[in-house]
Amino acid sequence: MSLGEMVKGIGKKAKEAAFMMAKASSSDKDRALKYIAEEIERRKSEIQNVNARDIEEAKKKELSGAKLARLELSDKVIGEMVSGIRDVIAWPDPIGRIVSMWTRPNGLRVGRMRIPLGVIGIIYESRPNVTVDASILCIKAGNAVILRGGSEAFQSNRCLADILRKGLARAGLPENAVQLVPTTDRSAVLEMLKLEDYIDVMIPRGGEELIRFVNDNATMPVLKHYKGVCHVFVDRSADIPMAVEICINAKVQKPGVCNAMETLLVHERIAEKFLPAVAEEMEKAGVELRGCHRTQEIIECHPATEDDWYEEYLDLILAIKVVSGMDEAIDHIRKYGSDHTEAIVTTEYERAWKFVQEVQSSLVLVNASTRFNDGYQLGLGAEIGISTSKLHAFGPMGVDELTTTKFVAFGDGQIRT
Amino acid sequence: MSLGEMVKGIGKKAKEAAFMMAKASSSDKDRALKYIAEEIERRKSEIQNVNARDIEEAKKKELSGAKLARLELSDKVIGEMVSGIRDVIAWPDPIGRIVSMWTRPNGLRVGRMRIPLGVIGIIYESRPNVTVDASILCIKAGNAVILRGGSEAFQSNRCLADILRKGLARAGLPENAVQLVPTTDRSAVLEMLKLEDYIDVMIPRGGEELIRFVNDNATMPVLKHYKGVCHVFVDRSADIPMAVEICINAKVQKPGVCNAMETLLVHERIAEKFLPAVAEEMEKAGVELRGCHRTQEIIECHPATEDDWYEEYLDLILAIKVVSGMDEAIDHIRKYGSDHTEAIVTTEYERAWKFVQEVQSSLVLVNASTRFNDGYQLGLGAEIGISTSKLHAFGPMGVDELTTTKFVAFGDGQIRT
Repeated sequence: MSLGEMVKGIGKKAKEAAFMMAKASSSDKDRALKYIAEEIERRKSEIQNVNARDIEEAKKKELSGAKLARLELSDKVIGEMVSGIRDVIAWPDPIGRIVSMWTRPNGLRVGRMRIPLGVIGIIYESRPNVTVDASILCIKAGNAVILRGGSEAFQSNRCLADILRKGLARAGLPENAVQLVPTTDRSAVLEMLKLEDYIDVMIPRGGEELIRFVNDNATMPVLKHYKGVCHVFVDRSADIPMAVEICINAKVQKPGVCNAMETLLVHERIAEKFLPAVAEEMEKAGVELRGCHRTQEIIECHPATEDDWYEEYLDLILAIKVVSGMDEAIDHIRKYGSDHTEAIVTTEYERAWKFVQEVQSSLVLVNASTRFNDGYQLGLGAEIGISTSKLHAFGPMGVDELTTTKFVAFGDGQIRT
Repeated sequence: MSLGEMVKGIGKKAKEAAFMMAKASSSDKDRALKYIAEEIERRKSEIQNVNARDIEEAKKKELSGAKLARLELSDKVIGEMVSGIRDVIAWPDPIGRIVSMWTRPNGLRVGRMRIPLGVIGIIYESRPNVTVDASILCIKAGNAVILRGGSEAFQSNRCLADILRKGLARAGLPENAVQLVPTTDRSAVLEMLKLEDYIDVMIPRGGEELIRFVNDNATMPVLKHYKGVCHVFVDRSADIPMAVEICINAKVQKPGVCNAMETLLVHERIAEKFLPAVAEEMEKAGVELRGCHRTQEIIECHPATEDDWYEEYLDLILAIKVVSGMDEAIDHIRKYGSDHTEAIVTTEYERAWKFVQEVQSSLVLVNASTRFNDGYQLGLGAEIGISTSKLHAFGPMGVDELTTTKFVAFGDGQIRT
């Protein structure tokens, strides 16, 4: 059997399983999730032994420290996985919900009913916990999932997928609702991307290069974000201590993630007061500052080049620009931003609203840190990723974003005239 | 300037216009629509003269009668265009609406605000009225649109695009919110499909071949349906006169459209009574019947082959199959259907719900004709197309489907801990 046939076979089985999952009861889905949580706890040492083998091989391949850290299924990571499952069990089932309903002049009752998307393909890199985190959301929303994890985590992923499948089967649900592509051959990804007839949506998670490859070759819709070049605009009237605190949080609390601030925009009227205050705190936190020429006149910093405005540092580096007003700030965001997360710090009502209206990013905040762009933090309960493509989902995606609605119509013999 | 550079230039101008359109007031957008309607009426004879030239050239190229009919901007088509614009003016503006809002434990107020998609690419074939119908929906929803019409309608499209642009400009809105790709060169389509950075979504309308080409080559999301192989399932307990009326309406009222019935599924327990009744009416209406072997035992008809179950006839031809029960009907729909529109005719409550739950098509009807799968008929007010891809929109797409939501968050200094 060729690789293409093998992957297509997985697609066919997934589509069959998706049909069963779409009509599964809430209690069966929740029972499967409960069994999975129990089984992860019961087989914890086995999971960690398998994971240790992945880590050992990764070390031989001289993976970076950051990548090795992501690969590890520590007690903490496993604990979060299990408590995550328990959270998901507690939520209401989105499927079958009638979102709205109305009656047409001819008496036809028309509504929208929430249904699963069908088959979801997830392509991800080193973190093996994604295997579980993504699958449980897909199960809750009545979907089937095809997982294609990173080759470094292959053995860990296989062990976790086995637990997921056994949990489904024990609850009387099709084990093929979770399938792991059983090869590390990179061309399997390309084969998945051809399966428009079997996979309804592809969600790539990882570096920009992987995501571009998936997007450019996929025949089905792709939910993705390339990067997060997030901005904080400190407006002329900002409360300076609040602005400093928000900027430090946005840059320093977790610099390696997509919702961290990368560029700070400062209104010229507040720059002389605000910049020294924020620079002092940034330096304490070990942040390297790269400023425009006007910034350089006020504080000590490296000069920023044109490239800096496009950069997603994912590190303790911050680009700073002094702007002549809000329009320049918004134009800067339009030109260099990534539609991810933008915040304004201001005390002026009208200016807060102007920023909220005109900035078209997946999350626009007033007087709060960019770090809140996260499914848990915004109150979605969970997150399978953040989308900056505007179609279907824009921003963090929770369980509802793994569903769609179909139209339903109840008549008593209506025909069209 | 190369074709690629020319098309990219259109994309850039559209993105710039989209930024202005996103913050345009409702009254400016509605004024532009009013000017466009007035201008179409004022320049009607000019439009029809230009259109006559397109038709003349099409005749020389020996286009089919059906294609020639679609090309014509008759008094009726122009009248519908204008009354369509007046309808759109009367609707509420979707933009800026806060869809929902909640407060997080830390006091952060989080909501979803409806915003335009941005730049919409429309690729369509002969009908020049799509130029206007699609553009006005895009304008109402605050988007910019790039139009790529069929080469047969090139001069008509150019005339209508000119009217649209003048109406926008007169209302103080950017005329580049409507742009027509000014060439009939087919490779311009391929260039458009590369513009992920400038075009947010592509909506192809036309034959399956065109739509597949767009889908397979697009780097941005595509909203589409390939075809409509719609089914009516006449259940064991159906009211026979109602079932006959619904089937005749679904097949005969307008056979050349995507929501017409192509295959009739009949429960074996009602087949002997129902089939002669429906066959009589179908024959009166000139419908050619192609039945499975069990159908052939009950009524006179051509034998149906395996290919017939996949066929979108778009013509007065109907495939008929007798099934042993609802599960066989649903399995048939899953295998041969196109996720477009399916109807059941039944008097049994439980069976109506089972069909509604288990059939995952964009519209599932009980006791009503498949012909209702249409934005106007379902009460969306208008329609820019029907999507059978489940992402973003599933079913007819109205103005709301040309928007998305961004998250907005209002804080008073919240940081993430």
